[in-house]
Formats: sequence, C-alpha cells, structure tokens
Amino acid sequence: MAPVKVFGSARFTNVARVLVCLEEVGVAYEVVDIDFPAKEHKKPEHLARNPFGVIPAFQDGELMLFESRAIAKYILRKYRTDEVDMLREGNLQEAAMVDVWTEVEAHQYNKVLAPIVMECIIYPTAYGIPTNQKVVDESVEKLKKVLEVYEARLSEHEYLAGNFISSADLSHFPFTCRFMETPYASLFDSFPSVKAWWEKLMLRPSMKKISTNLHPKMV
Amino acid sequence: MAPVKVFGSARFTNVARVLVCLEEVGVAYEVVDIDFPAKEHKKPEHLARNPFGVIPAFQDGELMLFESRAIAKYILRKYRTDEVDMLREGNLQEAAMVDVWTEVEAHQYNKVLAPIVMECIIYPTAYGIPTNQKVVDESVEKLKKVLEVYEARLSEHEYLAGNFISSADLSHFPFTCRFMETPYASLFDSFPSVKAWWEKLMLRPSMKKISTNLHPKMV
Repeated sequence: MAPVKVFGSARFTNVARVLVCLEEVGVAYEVVDIDFPAKEHKKPEHLARNPFGVIPAFQDGELMLFESRAIAKYILRKYRTDEVDMLREGNLQEAAMVDVWTEVEAHQYNKVLAPIVMECIIYPTAYGIPTNQKVVDESVEKLKKVLEVYEARLSEHEYLAGNFISSADLSHFPFTCRFMETPYASLFDSFPSVKAWWEKLMLRPSMKKISTNLHPKMV
Repeated sequence: MAPVKVFGSARFTNVARVLVCLEEVGVAYEVVDIDFPAKEHKKPEHLARNPFGVIPAFQDGELMLFESRAIAKYILRKYRTDEVDMLREGNLQEAAMVDVWTEVEAHQYNKVLAPIVMECIIYPTAYGIPTNQKVVDESVEKLKKVLEVYEARLSEHEYLAGNFISSADLSHFPFTCRFMETPYASLFDSFPSVKAWWEKLMLRPSMKKISTNLHPKMV
C-alpha cells in the first residue's frame, strides 16, 4: 500500500507539525515537495488539495485533508495505540485538557511567539524583508506573560495536559524549534520548568529527526 | 446537582460559542457574569479559572476549562447522543472533516472576518476607538477570497464537514452573527450557498436564542 503523503516542504513549520506526529506513530510517509518560490502552492493542482493555497495538505488514500492541526489529529487518532495515545479521547477529562492546551498553543502561545520567528528569521532570510524590531519587542513582552502561565502549569505537571505527553505538547514543537534560533532563545532560561519541558521534548527521536529539516537557511 | 457554569457575559462572542453548544445538547447551565469594565477578568478569582485572564471559563464539578473551542468540544463530547453528534469521533473520516473545518474557522475565516467586527462594532461601541477603515477594507478583500472557498464547499455539501451539521458549523456562529450587523453583511449575497447555509443555521433554536444576547449596544 502506498504510504500517506504530505504535500509541502519539510522545512516549513506547519509541515513539521504533521511530520512529527507521523514520526511519533511510526507510520511510513512520503513528503511531496511543493515549490514555494515557484508559487506551486497557488496552482490548480495544489488548490485541489488545499483550497486556501497554503501548505501542508495530506493524503491518505481517497481522503485529502488540510490545516496542520486537523491533520495532526487525524494521524494521532487513526494510529492510536495504548502506548501512543496523544488525544486521550477515551477519557473525558484528559481529552479536555489536551484540547485546552492545544487551543492555548494556537491562540495564546503561537500568536506571540510566531511573530518573533517571522520577524527575526523568516522575513529576512526568505523574503529579504528587514526585521521590524517594534513587533519583536512587543511580542517578546507578551511572550513573557504567556511563559509565566506555562511555568505555573509545568511546575505542577510533567506535560501541558497533565502527566502524560499529548498532541498539545507536540503542537508546540515547530515554532518553538525555530524560536530557539532567534536572539531571544535565552528567554526560556527564566522559566526553568518550561525549559526542562522543552529539553525533554527535544530528546524524543521524532523531534530530533524533524528538527534537522527546520534549518534557518532553508526557510 | 448544580448545573455547569459558564464564566463571562453572554454578550461576548467567545462565550456565545460555548452557550450555543450547551443549547444544542440541551444541558442546564448558569452564566456567571464577569464585569469586564471593572476588569474582573484580571482579578485573582478569575485568573484561577483562566490563567490568561480572558473569558470564557467553564466549570463542570471539579473540572475547570478555558479556551472556547476546547470547552465546546468538551460539551459536545460529554453530551453526545446518536441524535446530537457534532464531533463524529466514531467515524475517522467524518471526524477529520469536522476538524479541518473547525481549524479553517479559527485560522482562515475568523482571522479575516473578526477584524471587520472589531473595527466596525466592538472598538467604536465598547472602547470609543474609531474604525480603522484600512484594516476593514483589507479584511473585506481577504474575506471575499475565503468566501469563494466556502461557496465551492457549500455548493457541494449541506454543511461544512459534509451532509451533517457539526461543531465546525456551530463555531462560525458568534462572529458571523456580529458580522451581520456591520455595513458589510450584504457581502454574503454574492455567495448564495454560503448565505443559504447561514440562514439555515440561524433557524436553529440554539442560535436564535443566543443571538439575542449578542446585541451591538452591549458589547
């Protein structure tokens, strides 16, 4: 049987969010590169996969999905085992905490961390647009407030949703990984529980492997 | 048994996202008003419920949740019946499409529609900040592109995730409801399938009831 396919280069954060899930569940997959500079993501063939003209898209047989966080859930649900149960949908309270911290990633954490990555790495490297320091400075201040909440949470729980790793943790991987290449990485030093959590995550074979693709020169 | 509690005024969009789910599953609930002008959401009592100091928060016995989209999932999962099955987690493909269009709401639709609501209604009415017409105009152009994708989808399917109503549809309710009070409501006239979908949703008792709380003068 053909493996599942991920459309979009492995060096993109939202693609990495999907790949790290595939590595965690141990399913064979093929990455089909989409030529971003050639605007292949805006061409009909890719728009048929993802009507918003962005990456990633994901194919499993006849099923075509888009939106990285939705794809992640599909993978973690389909290939769930007793050992790798990242959504915890069999337990109402655990599933709720996974959902809470997955939403926090999207709407609190990424909202303030992603602009720092974009301004410090992606805009200058990939688009030749200089860093807007005002945006960076404002985002750094907001990130500190968010990390205070994370510190409180992670000083009481091993992982975000509780004492078990979940999709909520995995979802933080791609942008945090890029953030660690910015001049603001040392911000995490002030939040020891957050730093320990991140270092523990980065020991996972899935994250080690996928992080090598997230190279700054190749945004 | 005490009903579940929702912390936050019913006139806020993110609270309405939770309330419409409670109405759909038919569970008794209590809304505990949080005095926004008095900054009650930033006080320790509320920060214990939602560490980010925003609304809503949700209490079911010992369990306290935050992030409206996570709360919505908890409600729809806990009170799922064969008749009211808005997450479709028993069916891998259906659940995936629910997740895709729920993520689209958050990351494509709301991202361009919410600024129009904020600039046209909420900033001027609640904060006395004049509308930034440049933001509105740019968002309107982006919204048209998003609605083209919705039109294509809804011309082929009764609801966003397929031919069944789901949490993906419900999640669009609060901001679209407010959008219909802006001078740009007629934009939907150019997208007949989207308009028919919205009108069908607004016939639901849940949305009729909760929309009466989303009054523009009371933002």
